[in-house]
Amino acid sequence: MSRMIMYYRSALLLLAFLLVTGCQGLAPRATGDLGLVIERATGSVQIIDTSSRSALARIEGLGDLSHASVVYSRDERYAYVFGRDGGLTKIDMLLQRIDRRIIQSGNSIGGAISQDGSLIAVSNYEPGGVKIFDAQTLELVADIPAIGENGKRSKVVGLVDAPQKQFVFSLYEADEIWVADMRQPTQPQITRYRDVGKQPYDALISGEGRYYIAGLFGEDGLALLDLWQPQAGVKQILGDYGRGEEKLPVYKMPHLEGWAMAGDYALVPAVGGHEVLVIDRSNWQLVKRIPVHSQPVFVMASPDQRHVWVNFAHPDNDTIQVIDVASLEVIDTLKPGPAVLHMEFTPRGHEVWVSVRDANRVRVYDAYTRQEITSLEMASPSGIFFTNRAHRIGL
Amino acid sequence: MSRMIMYYRSALLLLAFLLVTGCQGLAPRATGDLGLVIERATGSVQIIDTSSRSALARIEGLGDLSHASVVYSRDERYAYVFGRDGGLTKIDMLLQRIDRRIIQSGNSIGGAISQDGSLIAVSNYEPGGVKIFDAQTLELVADIPAIGENGKRSKVVGLVDAPQKQFVFSLYEADEIWVADMRQPTQPQITRYRDVGKQPYDALISGEGRYYIAGLFGEDGLALLDLWQPQAGVKQILGDYGRGEEKLPVYKMPHLEGWAMAGDYALVPAVGGHEVLVIDRSNWQLVKRIPVHSQPVFVMASPDQRHVWVNFAHPDNDTIQVIDVASLEVIDTLKPGPAVLHMEFTPRGHEVWVSVRDANRVRVYDAYTRQEITSLEMASPSGIFFTNRAHRIGL
Repeated sequence: MSRMIMYYRSALLLLAFLLVTGCQGLAPRATGDLGLVIERATGSVQIIDTSSRSALARIEGLGDLSHASVVYSRDERYAYVFGRDGGLTKIDMLLQRIDRRIIQSGNSIGGAISQDGSLIAVSNYEPGGVKIFDAQTLELVADIPAIGENGKRSKVVGLVDAPQKQFVFSLYEADEIWVADMRQPTQPQITRYRDVGKQPYDALISGEGRYYIAGLFGEDGLALLDLWQPQAGVKQILGDYGRGEEKLPVYKMPHLEGWAMAGDYALVPAVGGHEVLVIDRSNWQLVKRIPVHSQPVFVMASPDQRHVWVNFAHPDNDTIQVIDVASLEVIDTLKPGPAVLHMEFTPRGHEVWVSVRDANRVRVYDAYTRQEITSLEMASPSGIFFTNRAHRIGL
Repeated sequence: MSRMIMYYRSALLLLAFLLVTGCQGLAPRATGDLGLVIERATGSVQIIDTSSRSALARIEGLGDLSHASVVYSRDERYAYVFGRDGGLTKIDMLLQRIDRRIIQSGNSIGGAISQDGSLIAVSNYEPGGVKIFDAQTLELVADIPAIGENGKRSKVVGLVDAPQKQFVFSLYEADEIWVADMRQPTQPQITRYRDVGKQPYDALISGEGRYYIAGLFGEDGLALLDLWQPQAGVKQILGDYGRGEEKLPVYKMPHLEGWAMAGDYALVPAVGGHEVLVIDRSNWQLVKRIPVHSQPVFVMASPDQRHVWVNFAHPDNDTIQVIDVASLEVIDTLKPGPAVLHMEFTPRGHEVWVSVRDANRVRVYDAYTRQEITSLEMASPSGIFFTNRAHRIGL
């Protein structure tokens, strides 16, 4: 008798324990205010909550995360982390664990998610090309080797998503831009633009998904493709943009995806120079050069387009400057600490998160007073990516 | 003995049941692809999932939902539904139930959530004013009676959020626009703009939160406040915009929040006329009049700004027309059915959800082929609101 009671009592306790802990582990929480911080040196990421300004969990085992970037599923539950070593890791932000992980190539440089959220594209250096995966299963759907007109396989850079289930990317050695129409996922329809300029090295797409702009490493100027007029082909714009006649020493080629589209202007980092360039978006002409602290890397507009925050290349990378878009002048200089690598605005722009790698901290600033609100300890933080990117084109 | 065993057995079964059903009810799910559809006639809403294109739950008891609108908490978990009868209902999208509900006035007309997500503002007709609530608890934080220079209490319309924790709204009888700075929530700082034009009846704010534009019922033209230059005051623009000399019969004053900002243009519904007006945003001048099916109500740009979808006033409200922004011409006419009341694009614009009230259906269209993908049965559906609005200014 007493044995049976003991049996029941144990089972009861176990179930009660499961009920409390199991359901606690699954306590409902939403995903609109989450994000990931890349911890490059340790191959880990931290899931952060921008409402409580806290770290929720560290996830390890993501491989080489130099130059890593992140996109999100359309429900904001899953993060896709693109590693430098060809690793593609799908993270479950709610269960705080790796959902799936594959090594899809030897050397990769970023990715994108299709407009409908069904496909993940990864751009690869080695072997050069784009691979397309099912977003749920990470099974290979299509493989697009980047063989240009020169017959050689090229590194792929500047991969972005575009409306109508397209991906757009550039072939570094082939001087080409390709548009892949993925409406039939297993049969990509490729449109190739040749001789777009020498060595496209990175690209961006404007927020509405219309203008694809590639930077050129091998010559000055930029390559522009208007996706509303694809038949017009690729045009070169801003002939002065680049390293110039003298081939200025460039400590870090600026990221193009950091271009700030604010009002009528695009604010872009000069290559090599200590300037942010202001370009009129209606004719892509240079309007003004704004002198800044050093060589700019990311030039990021706030969601209200009122300010542009700029970080800088080594060795002057302890600084952020803030440009007022109305006056096109620097209005503030911050010193977050050694190696300011990335900035991310909260979705509606009330705060800015800043990774300060060599201080092992992510600092959170009020976007308007520019006072530090708090900071979080992170291991060599680099990229910061919030889930609201799920809802935006070209990120 | 057997009684004790029976006791334990019952408790065991109960706990096992709780474990299975309780945790099932709490199965983790994200919130980035959710939305609400207003069922006006029955005072209910349905929670929908735009990934599976399905309805998840109906929530009842929300009172009078004519002209209801919705904003979302910054984590995309809670919806705030503003009812016509002064009801403010906070819905938990994950637990699929009413979290809190108050009757905050006798007659209200919409609301907004502050940039940081901490405050909910509601604009009221009776008594005229704005009430500000704590977003978590729905406790009253501030009460702003709308007493204009004429000394009388005015109906409040066109309430929107703006950057730096501001709310902007218009006083219908007092011909005023007010900006409330809520950085000290219990002590709103109000800036009043007087004589902005006769009877502002609705308003919008541009996507970056810079331009507040109010429509005028009592005269032609629009009132424009540039929040980057508040000291410049309110200007009247588009002097021809309105009902005109002849005071055309207007079956429904068009919604201003349906204005489409696409590229360099704003596309706006003509008042009374069978036209969509194209306005150059750089100087607010009329560029073109596009003839359309009937009197337009909502004129909504797709997230890629490539197309503008237009619905129409009674009795011609069985139709949608689609304008191509590149050519500024109507390129398609759809007939979703009787009483097309609202349209909502998925966040990156691959699909459009359309409420067809008198068919008791919400139809889901491919935004590009414009083919119907599926439809959902709903009771007299009107407004459709997706959670990605949480991340946008002025919605």
